[in-house]
Amino acid sequence: MRTPLQTALLEIRSCLGEASIHTDPETVERLSRCTLPLPNRAAAFVYPSSIDEIQQLLIIANRHRVPVWPCSQGRNWGYGSANPFLEGSIVMVLARLNHILEVNETLAYAVIEPGVTYRQLNAHLKSQGDKLWADCTDGPPDGSVLGNALERGIGETPYGDHFGNLCGLEIVLPSGEVIHTGGGPPGSKTWHTHKWGIGPYLEGLFSQSNFGVVTKAGVWLMPRPEAYNSFVFQLSWAKDFGRVLDVLRALALQRVLPTTIHMINAFVSLAVLTRYPFHLLQDQTFLPEEVIARLQQEYGVAPWTFSTGLYGTRAQVRVNRAIVKKALKPYGRLEFLDDRKVRWVSQVVPWLKRAQSYPLLAPLSRWVVRGGLRSSLALFDAVPYIHGILKGIPTEYFVRHAYFKSNHPRPDQDVHPARDSCGLFWFAPILPFTGQAVSEFLNVAQGLFHEQGFDLYVALLVMNPRSIVALMAILYRKEDAAETHRASVLYERLCALVLSEGYQQYRAAMPAWRGLFDQAPGFLKLCDTLKSAVDPNNIMAPGHYGIGLSHVRPHKDTQ
Amino acid sequence: MRTPLQTALLEIRSCLGEASIHTDPETVERLSRCTLPLPNRAAAFVYPSSIDEIQQLLIIANRHRVPVWPCSQGRNWGYGSANPFLEGSIVMVLARLNHILEVNETLAYAVIEPGVTYRQLNAHLKSQGDKLWADCTDGPPDGSVLGNALERGIGETPYGDHFGNLCGLEIVLPSGEVIHTGGGPPGSKTWHTHKWGIGPYLEGLFSQSNFGVVTKAGVWLMPRPEAYNSFVFQLSWAKDFGRVLDVLRALALQRVLPTTIHMINAFVSLAVLTRYPFHLLQDQTFLPEEVIARLQQEYGVAPWTFSTGLYGTRAQVRVNRAIVKKALKPYGRLEFLDDRKVRWVSQVVPWLKRAQSYPLLAPLSRWVVRGGLRSSLALFDAVPYIHGILKGIPTEYFVRHAYFKSNHPRPDQDVHPARDSCGLFWFAPILPFTGQAVSEFLNVAQGLFHEQGFDLYVALLVMNPRSIVALMAILYRKEDAAETHRASVLYERLCALVLSEGYQQYRAAMPAWRGLFDQAPGFLKLCDTLKSAVDPNNIMAPGHYGIGLSHVRPHKDTQ
Repeated sequence: MRTPLQTALLEIRSCLGEASIHTDPETVERLSRCTLPLPNRAAAFVYPSSIDEIQQLLIIANRHRVPVWPCSQGRNWGYGSANPFLEGSIVMVLARLNHILEVNETLAYAVIEPGVTYRQLNAHLKSQGDKLWADCTDGPPDGSVLGNALERGIGETPYGDHFGNLCGLEIVLPSGEVIHTGGGPPGSKTWHTHKWGIGPYLEGLFSQSNFGVVTKAGVWLMPRPEAYNSFVFQLSWAKDFGRVLDVLRALALQRVLPTTIHMINAFVSLAVLTRYPFHLLQDQTFLPEEVIARLQQEYGVAPWTFSTGLYGTRAQVRVNRAIVKKALKPYGRLEFLDDRKVRWVSQVVPWLKRAQSYPLLAPLSRWVVRGGLRSSLALFDAVPYIHGILKGIPTEYFVRHAYFKSNHPRPDQDVHPARDSCGLFWFAPILPFTGQAVSEFLNVAQGLFHEQGFDLYVALLVMNPRSIVALMAILYRKEDAAETHRASVLYERLCALVLSEGYQQYRAAMPAWRGLFDQAPGFLKLCDTLKSAVDPNNIMAPGHYGIGLSHVRPHKDTQ
Repeated sequence: MRTPLQTALLEIRSCLGEASIHTDPETVERLSRCTLPLPNRAAAFVYPSSIDEIQQLLIIANRHRVPVWPCSQGRNWGYGSANPFLEGSIVMVLARLNHILEVNETLAYAVIEPGVTYRQLNAHLKSQGDKLWADCTDGPPDGSVLGNALERGIGETPYGDHFGNLCGLEIVLPSGEVIHTGGGPPGSKTWHTHKWGIGPYLEGLFSQSNFGVVTKAGVWLMPRPEAYNSFVFQLSWAKDFGRVLDVLRALALQRVLPTTIHMINAFVSLAVLTRYPFHLLQDQTFLPEEVIARLQQEYGVAPWTFSTGLYGTRAQVRVNRAIVKKALKPYGRLEFLDDRKVRWVSQVVPWLKRAQSYPLLAPLSRWVVRGGLRSSLALFDAVPYIHGILKGIPTEYFVRHAYFKSNHPRPDQDVHPARDSCGLFWFAPILPFTGQAVSEFLNVAQGLFHEQGFDLYVALLVMNPRSIVALMAILYRKEDAAETHRASVLYERLCALVLSEGYQQYRAAMPAWRGLFDQAPGFLKLCDTLKSAVDPNNIMAPGHYGIGLSHVRPHKDTQ
């Protein structure tokens, strides 16, 4: 007697073909590997290559009441990767739907499928004459543009609110029906230009949820500006941290600065530039303040650093640069970069590096970098990546931070922390954009990190001029059971802290989903009501963001 | 034996008190008057003054299956006013929920109830030191800020996407349950700063629909900029119209211009400045081209005119002014205004007006206005209102256009076209923001206007850098049955035209609702599915934007 799951898999196999499905345990284990301390729960990985195949798959899943877990590329590292929430789910990877269907240069948007990656979209636009820039994240270049946008990820340029810049979705509902958002006629010519459409705006329903599979979407792109400068700001004194945040809020409200500033603490800088200095640990499992200070000295790293871009006509960039200088100069060091300067850095860095291996030239090279440029070679290395990513050019350079504490050698290419068993939780509360709120929250959070024996890793991502995400990573060694346990405890405590302080998360990792709306039962009830209406058999990603769990018997969930 | 409606009204009366309900036919007729050629369908007007009363009302409505029609102030003139869609509905006016609950100066937002008007919010902010500016529309100053935002109206300043600038809603669901959007804990400190919240973004569900009553919302406000200039652009030659639109798109994409430019044709200018010249009609019921040309000459009105604001630091405004000048100078006349210049105009206009009544001074005054300033006194009159509205200061000045063809004397204050039986349809298709698309559409639309004997009234409202609303008014005399019929026919034809050209409306008037999604059946089905889930008795505004009609027997709808 076959189980419903077995029957469903047989039917899928016969519909989609042998090459589109993996059920052997080894492959399934490899594909569902995840940076979180969670068991692999997938029963199979399926790769539909058309809407028709997605529809067939969903109809089969409904027939046998088997949960389907859609993901675009599965590179949602630190939040859940491709691992489903419920044991025995069929993971539906959309990587084969990877067409760039349209690029409209006049109206500055592209229409893409969920398998399209940052790398692919960026390369395509460059090959078309570089007239439009797509935003990306500092995460995986092979991540899905739509996947990230539907999880409401944040990018780097003025188009960094990824969900905010989606416009016009094609969706396969759990029933297999296909709908277009916006309420317009078939082929509506404003489907990808007018975000709200006519009638209720429904696109939000399909973000951070499980109401349907988005198979096509419009993505707004930035016309290449006449002028572009990036700049790096290094805070001189930690005591000015709150004041600088207030300055940045004012600049963001005035629209001088794009609202996707990423401000990182010294620990984040170190995680990108080097490997974890285990030998410097004293009696604790996290670095004492004086050790971090010494490493900052060595790598030329400030207590807080951020970089962002200025975009516009030459005159606009000039004016905004002057405003930024006046506002930030009192608090630290500002380094403006343009394409020419970055090219120069790219040429000079290899020379300086080579010089270090000659006994006579090494001191000179060190003097140039330290004294003349007041920086470190490692920091110099980062400049072209910083300048590039603020133009939407994706890179694997920054993702390498996930290997900071890992035994696995840190790759320069094909970076894949999930596959390489790196331990990483993202914890992402959103706070009001004020120096006081952020300082106070970070103080308490640091206490929890230290209590559990972890260093505080925090990057502040400006979501909009009124809110800021305090993105924290818990980097842990998966092979160390005690450390893994401490990481889970820390994550749980942080989730509780956020609520008790009157805040909320902007995006949540899988272990947070079950209790995510414990303090918003009315909201969850409404979500579940809507869920039951569009997915009566609860086959679509049950449990994603905590929705669709009211009907799920507890024993089916291994979490 | 009482009908369910009668029983419901009795129960409401006993719950809310005599003073909160009107059922006498005369008052109900007066309150539900509307600028559209529709019968009054309201059975009663009810004025709850608390969430508790709203809940009681909805519970009663559910018990007796009587439709409730929520509206904020009922000033949705040209789209439906306070008139419900279904015969025998109880209109629930939220005007008594009119508290400004919070103004956060640091994070630049206010929290308000649905009864708060533009006039009230603006006055409140001014009384608090004028540190924040609220956007408004050029419609009624006593319109509801939230009502307009939930209908997704467009305003005047960089905060003109009213729905886009809502953040954090409190909603009473049709069941009477109260929910908060955003998924945060009670009193979440980012409820009004982070638009998307955690989990699915549900706020869109409550715009242009009938899923709940919004009783509280955060509204983002613009910090008063260091510098503000407005400018008026008058197109010299109609032939350049398309080219200028393309220039404006480029400027909007570059973020030089805020995206709420309103560009009006000569007929709109005349409708604001004067009364309809019936005596100049020839053998048709609309003005011949040469008559419009002559009136343009007389009033100094260009074929197309727009005004918008520049906001920022002094240096930013200076740079952007230069960019605008360079881009637009070749196509027409640009007049920049600042507070000082506007004060001067306000002082000089009464003097010039007075001068006109002295035989000796009149020619001099005319010469100053015409020759020196190349304008008309009527246009001069408008300047302070234009400059003010672009700072979010509401005015009744522009709404007076609704009286253009009416017998009713045009009031200077207490403008109320619905009460005064003016005939007005708004028709608001959204088009891609390109000169070609807009020109082509307007040509065809003008044909339909002329065919039905109407002048083309069109204001182009820039929704975002990629889309533009071609807002058209059908101004008709209600007392003329034939003209009223022609207005309805024209409206119907325009609705059909939009779809056949592959476009859609951005906001729709009541007569369009029944067939609104005829070409998007999947979208409507999803809306109706969600509607049934949250409002199983279909008591909340059935028919609003065409949703919730699948269960309504046709004979209950008098349309």
